[in-house]
Amino acid sequence: MNDAPGASSPLITLTTDFGQDDGYVGAMKGAMLSIAPTARVVDLTHGIRPQDVRSGAYALWQAVPYWPAATVHVAVVDPGVGTNRRGLAIAAGGQLLVGPDNGLLAWAAQRLGAGDLVGDVLRIGEHGQAVALEAPAFWRPAPSSSFHGRDVFGPVAAHLAAGLALHQLGPMVSTIIAMPWPRPEVVDGGWMVEVVHVDRFGNLVTALSRDLLAGRDVVVRVGDRWIAGLSPHYQQDGELIALIGSEGLLEVAAPNGSAASTSGLGVGACLQVLLRD
Amino acid sequence: MNDAPGASSPLITLTTDFGQDDGYVGAMKGAMLSIAPTARVVDLTHGIRPQDVRSGAYALWQAVPYWPAATVHVAVVDPGVGTNRRGLAIAAGGQLLVGPDNGLLAWAAQRLGAGDLVGDVLRIGEHGQAVALEAPAFWRPAPSSSFHGRDVFGPVAAHLAAGLALHQLGPMVSTIIAMPWPRPEVVDGGWMVEVVHVDRFGNLVTALSRDLLAGRDVVVRVGDRWIAGLSPHYQQDGELIALIGSEGLLEVAAPNGSAASTSGLGVGACLQVLLRD
Amino acid sequence: MNDAPGASSPLITLTTDFGQDDGYVGAMKGAMLSIAPTARVVDLTHGIRPQDVRSGAYALWQAVPYWPAATVHVAVVDPGVGTNRRGLAIAAGGQLLVGPDNGLLAWAAQRLGAGDLVGDVLRIGEHGQAVALEAPAFWRPAPSSSFHGRDVFGPVAAHLAAGLALHQLGPMVSTIIAMPWPRPEVVDGGWMVEVVHVDRFGNLVTALSRDLLAGRDVVVRVGDRWIAGLSPHYQQDGELIALIGSEGLLEVAAPNGSAASTSGLGVGACLQVLLRD
Repeated sequence: MNDAPGASSPLITLTTDFGQDDGYVGAMKGAMLSIAPTARVVDLTHGIRPQDVRSGAYALWQAVPYWPAATVHVAVVDPGVGTNRRGLAIAAGGQLLVGPDNGLLAWAAQRLGAGDLVGDVLRIGEHGQAVALEAPAFWRPAPSSSFHGRDVFGPVAAHLAAGLALHQLGPMVSTIIAMPWPRPEVVDGGWMVEVVHVDRFGNLVTALSRDLLAGRDVVVRVGDRWIAGLSPHYQQDGELIALIGSEGLLEVAAPNGSAASTSGLGVGACLQVLLRD
Repeated sequence: MNDAPGASSPLITLTTDFGQDDGYVGAMKGAMLSIAPTARVVDLTHGIRPQDVRSGAYALWQAVPYWPAATVHVAVVDPGVGTNRRGLAIAAGGQLLVGPDNGLLAWAAQRLGAGDLVGDVLRIGEHGQAVALEAPAFWRPAPSSSFHGRDVFGPVAAHLAAGLALHQLGPMVSTIIAMPWPRPEVVDGGWMVEVVHVDRFGNLVTALSRDLLAGRDVVVRVGDRWIAGLSPHYQQDGELIALIGSEGLLEVAAPNGSAASTSGLGVGACLQVLLRD
Repeated sequence: MNDAPGASSPLITLTTDFGQDDGYVGAMKGAMLSIAPTARVVDLTHGIRPQDVRSGAYALWQAVPYWPAATVHVAVVDPGVGTNRRGLAIAAGGQLLVGPDNGLLAWAAQRLGAGDLVGDVLRIGEHGQAVALEAPAFWRPAPSSSFHGRDVFGPVAAHLAAGLALHQLGPMVSTIIAMPWPRPEVVDGGWMVEVVHVDRFGNLVTALSRDLLAGRDVVVRVGDRWIAGLSPHYQQDGELIALIGSEGLLEVAAPNGSAASTSGLGVGACLQVLLRD
């Protein structure tokens, strides 16, 4: 890890539901910088809705592929803090992930090549490694039962950033908890596909990958509206438009507005997508 | 650029409308740090209202004069992403600006000395340089049509921070798009002046510069209220007060409240300002 | 200070009520990095409610103990900017605090060992030092009367991060303004105790420290509800639960919800806490 170009000032990113109105983020950053004093601590987001593990998992999935080798991503959306849910550290694709074993890390880990999603677990494969956090030597002394971001995950991430080997943190595990990634359901002439994310702009991001379309055009049914064809960008006429978003997923947008508001739909809603031939 | 004191860890700032609830900011930061691995990436704001180019331009105008030489500011409020709107990189006052050519950069560029605002363009002058981004070698491969922050502007900013010369990014341009800066209109005994910004505290910031007043006192008409005289600070009696704000512009404030709420006024509203003697 | 591990890139943290929608944060960061060009500037929070000095004081109190030696914390929640309220720089516990003398810094200073809270002041003790900011040489030239974050506190913090000695900033002071920390009132069988903070999750944090309980169990009265016993974590049955939070203070939470919304209570509300046996 110390061969990475920025190794003299390692990168640690943060993804949490702590918001920006309290001292939680500040306490956690301090705890990390006390262990890895030369680190650069970078905010991905603290705006995940409280306890919305799924949105946290999506944000992390969206961000991690773009980071350099040796980055340590620590994520805390953790309604089960203080129960017997495990903590995890995962190595995959040259990067590291740290957080609770509640599904938060699995999509990002899979995207970095850690293994395969099988139902509601991620099976760690030959290109990944995962350990359960069981070595209190790398936590804050006397950790609280309500703030593992500051007392467990942050310190573990900082030790990794400072060069600690993964296996020192605890025993290897072969599966971690995952939320199922909704697969498009094949129907006559196309698919039924779920909205996996609504972003700040109100865009409805679906689980339908561009790869499935193989260049063919589509019509998309959103509630009782039909959208004909894919737009090349957001500045298009039409109350609702469909396009391929920045992660290669089909999304529905409202030019200069919010598709979520216009349609009344949100995460979990189903859209019908038909090939236009 | 490499003579700047912090050159071993160059500074890149971010101004966007991405908000804090998604992975967009995280993906963009990762893309930049993959190119400029020792950079310090600093958030100016991600809270610009979606697609509110004007507020983004104001925030950037407000922040850039205070930054050290060699800072690269990347700004993305970009409703036209994926259309034929140009991308820009601008050098002025020792600093660099990167973003779409939609008015977002022009006020900051002018303030750094890049040139003169003439109607709805900024004419690049002898102390500025601007190029259109036309060299895909410095973008992410296969850039998306919907996220140029991650795929074009971020990478270009990172290459500049790492020392790339401006002219390698594309051809020089002599004008860029600008929003007109509202000029106070001279009326009998004073001016009619537009509100250019409402800040978090609800202060109504106008386009009337302290320089115009030349030390004379004023009365300000806000809707059907008259404010007599300028206050030296915000802790003043009165429902509404007028003072010179931190950028030298006349503003209207409500002590311990919001002048925007109290007055019902916002950006674009006109206030009458009369000289007092 | 230059022996600290991260001294080549000193740490400056920011706690403000500036929000994320304007250029204030960006201007202040630029002003600091122009003075301390190698610093790492880290956001604690900019989400303190406008002019809510008390919440700012709490966030700072919550965060500072976890930071490494030589960190400079600058805090700006400053409704009295431009009046004759003093500015302060404080050294305690190896760290430094900079901000207005309005109560914002006192709880954090006390927690770092600067002195004792006595009514509405903090008396600086033998392990602390405080100075009034009276040396304009370390401010921006011609500081505004409305933005001391950019023009006074930020520059002072940056000079301290760059190695300036505290005593150069102005004369020593022996007391600073503090908000009283609400002490639990002893009643028959227990205490009446005030809510000192409501966090993003809606948890009601009280001023009752775990130390007072000495391991004994309690019942807590919240409005007309009684909560029997302390929970070990947040995933517990019950509309409202009580537990010891991450700062060792008794708090009331709503599993998967907001105790503030459920109870209708907020900062300043009084809860009855009775020992259980």
